[in-house]
Amino acid sequence: MPFEVRILGCSSGTPTSTRHTSAQIVNLLGRFFLIDCGEGTQIQLRRYGVKIQKIEYICISHLHGDHYLGLMGLLSTMSLLNRKKELIIFVPKGLDQIINLHLKLSYSKLSFEIKMIFLKGSKMIKIFEDEAFELFSFGLKHSIPCWGFKLVEKKRSKRILKSVINQYDMSFSDIKSIKLGMDFITKHNKVIPNDLLTQNSYQPRSYVYCSDTMYFDKLVDYVKDVDLLYHESTFHSEMSKKARTTFHSTAKDAGRVAFEGNVKQLLLGHFSPRYKELNVLKLDAQSLFKNTLIVNEGDIYKIKKTFK
Amino acid sequence: MPFEVRILGCSSGTPTSTRHTSAQIVNLLGRFFLIDCGEGTQIQLRRYGVKIQKIEYICISHLHGDHYLGLMGLLSTMSLLNRKKELIIFVPKGLDQIINLHLKLSYSKLSFEIKMIFLKGSKMIKIFEDEAFELFSFGLKHSIPCWGFKLVEKKRSKRILKSVINQYDMSFSDIKSIKLGMDFITKHNKVIPNDLLTQNSYQPRSYVYCSDTMYFDKLVDYVKDVDLLYHESTFHSEMSKKARTTFHSTAKDAGRVAFEGNVKQLLLGHFSPRYKELNVLKLDAQSLFKNTLIVNEGDIYKIKKTFK
Repeated sequence: MPFEVRILGCSSGTPTSTRHTSAQIVNLLGRFFLIDCGEGTQIQLRRYGVKIQKIEYICISHLHGDHYLGLMGLLSTMSLLNRKKELIIFVPKGLDQIINLHLKLSYSKLSFEIKMIFLKGSKMIKIFEDEAFELFSFGLKHSIPCWGFKLVEKKRSKRILKSVINQYDMSFSDIKSIKLGMDFITKHNKVIPNDLLTQNSYQPRSYVYCSDTMYFDKLVDYVKDVDLLYHESTFHSEMSKKARTTFHSTAKDAGRVAFEGNVKQLLLGHFSPRYKELNVLKLDAQSLFKNTLIVNEGDIYKIKKTFK
Repeated sequence: MPFEVRILGCSSGTPTSTRHTSAQIVNLLGRFFLIDCGEGTQIQLRRYGVKIQKIEYICISHLHGDHYLGLMGLLSTMSLLNRKKELIIFVPKGLDQIINLHLKLSYSKLSFEIKMIFLKGSKMIKIFEDEAFELFSFGLKHSIPCWGFKLVEKKRSKRILKSVINQYDMSFSDIKSIKLGMDFITKHNKVIPNDLLTQNSYQPRSYVYCSDTMYFDKLVDYVKDVDLLYHESTFHSEMSKKARTTFHSTAKDAGRVAFEGNVKQLLLGHFSPRYKELNVLKLDAQSLFKNTLIVNEGDIYKIKKTFK
């Protein structure tokens, strides 16, 4: 089962002729999360064949237009397609007012319910979970209230070896207890240790989304040891002064966060429209953190499984 | 000097893989009007090389999302590009609340002033003019308050023949009075009749935009004798019942308006996403009005000059 990120937009502030504003789809074990929703996101979803109704969760980092102006159109299209399933959205306070005003002025009602969970505080807190994953938010340091998101798989139960099921003619309840770590007792009262019947599942995978923010020490804790980090890199480090005054990061800042946080892979995004050629930003980050990629719209970045 | 319409979007309700929601740019003698502004309009403007800062006027027909959800992003980009020139927008009441709420929640201020002129009433009224054109609005018949727009050139003064300027060694004040219809008196007191010195300018050109609306008798008066009519044609006449219940037009309705209104050319737009192949809609309208075109995004439709 996949844990992967598809980039729909990676431009900062305004779209360019080759880049859209922020949006990405995370597929976590078949659950679809839309993170940020810049203008044109629904068009990008269509372009890349992502089924709009599959989206269950939407996370909006902050209320700068390049991160949420596609939301109303997306909700409206979901409704036109007669969605019935509840949509859960994690948003800064205020987005409820925007949605309600749009609906009021268009004399409209959505065909489905929205469960709105408001982001708050600066600490990392769990804001949602189901049996397979946990979702956290944490405060970023931007010119207006802004949050990052962390998605983590839960540890999966042990996998039972197919060969032993037949060998010992096991029942469903046998299999269930073995998965929980119990030993197995055969008909002849022989105890088979759990280790001989099972193998560990892969290590839980994790992903962090950080946009928009300037560098701050605490951020390193939030991204600690994650498999994949998407981090904004609006500017090259040559423009670090501009980055600071606008509460943004340079590519080198992103590299620093990835290095200090010991993440496995870094994705750079949220590029200023001034950069036509993005390799300079990659090199800037790689001066501190080698395993860095420049995201490309439409591309999918998979998090691989690893076993201990 | 041109009077032409470039289509940026012609999809009804929601974008499709090949069509964007409503937006078009009218170039009237170098003045740029944006009529409706669906999601992604700023991206379309960039795609077709229309300079965003050249837009002086924006007309929004009504507050269904497919006609205005691109506006906030466009205003924001104009501001990021540090526009200083005032922007005049003609909008339904309520859009001011939306703009103000977006700005408040993003702690932003635009770099330029907006002069907002609210649409009102159902009759055709002049809402703006300068020395070269007049802009009118008129009420349409839709499920929410909705207006159409009419742009008309003013009658231009007579054109003086270049040959006579040299022949009689005319001064600027001579030329000015001849353009106003006066005769010319030579140094030898010979009277040259104005008709021998001038030719009439071309006939004032006109354009009407009608979206969204169902058919109603009065509409025919509003489009009377115009050179070019853009009319919504959400459905084929086979779906006339659906058209009526949703307060929309069929292609045949559009053909009827064009025929009864004696317009010169009809452009069909605002197509339901159910129509992949649009020729059926063209044929539907042509059963009543031959000179009909299906609009194509990116294409420019020019209004030709005619002389009496």
